[in-house]
Amino acid sequence: MKPIQVGLLGFGTVGAGVAKVLVRNAEEIGRRAGRAIEVKRVGVRNIDKARTAAPSGTELSFGDDMRAVVDDPEVDIVCELIGGTELAKELVLRAIANRKHVVTANKALLAIHGNEIFAAAQKAGVMVNFEAAVAGGIPIIKALREGLTANRIEWIAGIINGTSNFILSDMRDTGASFADALAQAQKLGYAEADPTFDIEGHDAAHKLTILAAIAFGIPMQFEKAYLEGISTLSRDDIRYAEELGYRIKLLGITKRKPNGIELRVHPTLVPAKRIIANVEGVMNAVVVQGDAVGQTLYSGRGAGAEPTASAVVADLVDVTRLLTADPEHRVPHLAFQPDRLVDLPILPISEVETSYYLRLKAHDQTGVMADVTRILADLSISIDAMMQKEPAEGEKIVDIIILTHVAKEHRVDSAIARIESLPTIAGRLTKLRLENLDK
Amino acid sequence: MKPIQVGLLGFGTVGAGVAKVLVRNAEEIGRRAGRAIEVKRVGVRNIDKARTAAPSGTELSFGDDMRAVVDDPEVDIVCELIGGTELAKELVLRAIANRKHVVTANKALLAIHGNEIFAAAQKAGVMVNFEAAVAGGIPIIKALREGLTANRIEWIAGIINGTSNFILSDMRDTGASFADALAQAQKLGYAEADPTFDIEGHDAAHKLTILAAIAFGIPMQFEKAYLEGISTLSRDDIRYAEELGYRIKLLGITKRKPNGIELRVHPTLVPAKRIIANVEGVMNAVVVQGDAVGQTLYSGRGAGAEPTASAVVADLVDVTRLLTADPEHRVPHLAFQPDRLVDLPILPISEVETSYYLRLKAHDQTGVMADVTRILADLSISIDAMMQKEPAEGEKIVDIIILTHVAKEHRVDSAIARIESLPTIAGRLTKLRLENLDK
Repeated sequence: MKPIQVGLLGFGTVGAGVAKVLVRNAEEIGRRAGRAIEVKRVGVRNIDKARTAAPSGTELSFGDDMRAVVDDPEVDIVCELIGGTELAKELVLRAIANRKHVVTANKALLAIHGNEIFAAAQKAGVMVNFEAAVAGGIPIIKALREGLTANRIEWIAGIINGTSNFILSDMRDTGASFADALAQAQKLGYAEADPTFDIEGHDAAHKLTILAAIAFGIPMQFEKAYLEGISTLSRDDIRYAEELGYRIKLLGITKRKPNGIELRVHPTLVPAKRIIANVEGVMNAVVVQGDAVGQTLYSGRGAGAEPTASAVVADLVDVTRLLTADPEHRVPHLAFQPDRLVDLPILPISEVETSYYLRLKAHDQTGVMADVTRILADLSISIDAMMQKEPAEGEKIVDIIILTHVAKEHRVDSAIARIESLPTIAGRLTKLRLENLDK
Repeated sequence: MKPIQVGLLGFGTVGAGVAKVLVRNAEEIGRRAGRAIEVKRVGVRNIDKARTAAPSGTELSFGDDMRAVVDDPEVDIVCELIGGTELAKELVLRAIANRKHVVTANKALLAIHGNEIFAAAQKAGVMVNFEAAVAGGIPIIKALREGLTANRIEWIAGIINGTSNFILSDMRDTGASFADALAQAQKLGYAEADPTFDIEGHDAAHKLTILAAIAFGIPMQFEKAYLEGISTLSRDDIRYAEELGYRIKLLGITKRKPNGIELRVHPTLVPAKRIIANVEGVMNAVVVQGDAVGQTLYSGRGAGAEPTASAVVADLVDVTRLLTADPEHRVPHLAFQPDRLVDLPILPISEVETSYYLRLKAHDQTGVMADVTRILADLSISIDAMMQKEPAEGEKIVDIIILTHVAKEHRVDSAIARIESLPTIAGRLTKLRLENLDK
């Protein structure tokens, strides 16, 4: 089957990320979508600059006529990543008029012109997908539009601006002032030279407007959102909040009330024990309260080239599946097309690699540790941490706890057998597995 | 348009929950699905027992012939909630043969017979949806099948058995033994009289088998999963792990390795600072590591009548949308059908109700507190907590922090204006909003 042809508008961080992910994961994506997805052409303002940003291994066709991309009869999906609300609106409406499906990451565009764009798309019979517009790679739009459809949504509260969350985390962690934390964020590339848009809540309010619309079935009403940023927040308040058991987060909150909908972005004290209070740095998180499901939380990276590309490409796959299979086979049961499952072997537990927690009971005498560590070293199992507990009053047996680095399970089992045969060891070892879950 | 007719098989906790949610949220669900969804008939083993479980306000047609439900030509979707693997398999395959779409919450059925069931469904051109089979109301299946399709999934780690997580949380919190924590879970209805299935990891392994299949595009291979439960876990290990900075969780882990796939359920030490380590009680959480998106986390209630019903009904809406609209209009842009948006007013910030953090600078003299509290009381703003900081050496101005209960913003603003006019108050008050996010 002919690959789906994508016309990219814009080739900044996200555009380059989309091109990269489509190439790197082409096989995996094709198995899922039932069809290859290719970038047919890219419309940019500056061709030379775009060429230098193109990922190696890609041969992209760049041009500086954006309208030509939208008008190209061979383009199936227009992917709008130029940002801004004027040219983007014109191009998106033109793509829709040309009966092309649209994927966009542009929250400002949708929060401000969404009603008009969706009406046009509805009429033209095309899809406008926008998973990347809110919370980057976290599939929160899909969760709300499809995953939680049984629920009357009561409220949504989200950390939906990574820049602000980074600054607030930094102020709390290091006691920095707002100005210093902002400078740090700028140094690390998490904040723009002019950070207004992020720190004063505009970006969060765009995203919140979209969340509110799909949660409650109301039109986009960005102009009615209440905005308050973090630039006037003092270190004292962060510290006092902490003393009282709270964290301060820039939250976007939308809530159903008997007389209407609350739609507001502002610094908010949240009990420190809530999971969302512990979402730090540039991470995003959204909490949704539904009447049937209760509270669900979604967290992950809300910005950056590949996290955003993850959402954009998922939208491309969504459209591709629609254009490819019969509707009832749109999403394959096991996510991948049934004729493209692979029979990867399931590894036996002896071949599993992880870290280990080992607890041994040893007679409290010299040489035990030396024996144990030698056995581990002989089997190339390296030790991450070790702790010896004092024996209880009158006891002669001590607990020794060892954390290992990553090792194959059968090696660890061999070590355990050898350790258990030492005369200084009492009884059986306890073995538990340990996962850092860091990457 | 004629309502979609659902044939329910089974009317236990989840079945009754589905009936209840469909009735209670009928208007909201219809606006989203584009069509009403009705339970046409219910097949149960014991009609009298089922009748007593029927939610008030519903008039359900119960019968004890399950096959008659599956064979009813007017039933569009068969919703299998009887559990078990033998009769459930027969009925699901029969429904598929009758070209009915199927929604099931049955993880054991899919983990063991999924390959056969999906092959039959693919051939017959029907959908088998199973969002409720893993992690209850959390839309993790949708996230993996549709939201993260851009990614090469590296691994998944999940707390996917609420019973075990409750027991582990209780052991850690109270220092209880496994036996005592289990007894407590049974008392609260979180564990069965025979808890083997939950505490020995079978249930988690069923769910993990499904997650692995859709993450990696491999057939279901439950028989190759490694299982280790929590019944032999000692209090000592929980305490030692804590001392070393870890929490012990029963995790289902599946990981892509060069030589195959790891598929394992066992108690696992996880760094205490990870969000998943802080998911307590009966809550579920799943972490997915994708190559583009990085780490995303999904948490919520993994069991219970309505959380599970939330996922079942979302699946029903999915099928209903497919049977109702043109494919490209399957999911409305704003989640609700465009002709069924409502124009709920967005409330001005003065009408917003929340709790408040107020910081005032006061001259350190008697009577200040009395004045401030009287102003708040006059405006019916009740105080949740109050904290006075000692003045710095040589200073005469003290910081006073007040947390209020929920109040309307315009009342709080009035109070602030009055407080600021007190002669004992220095400068402006700081006002921050506070959200408990508890329900």
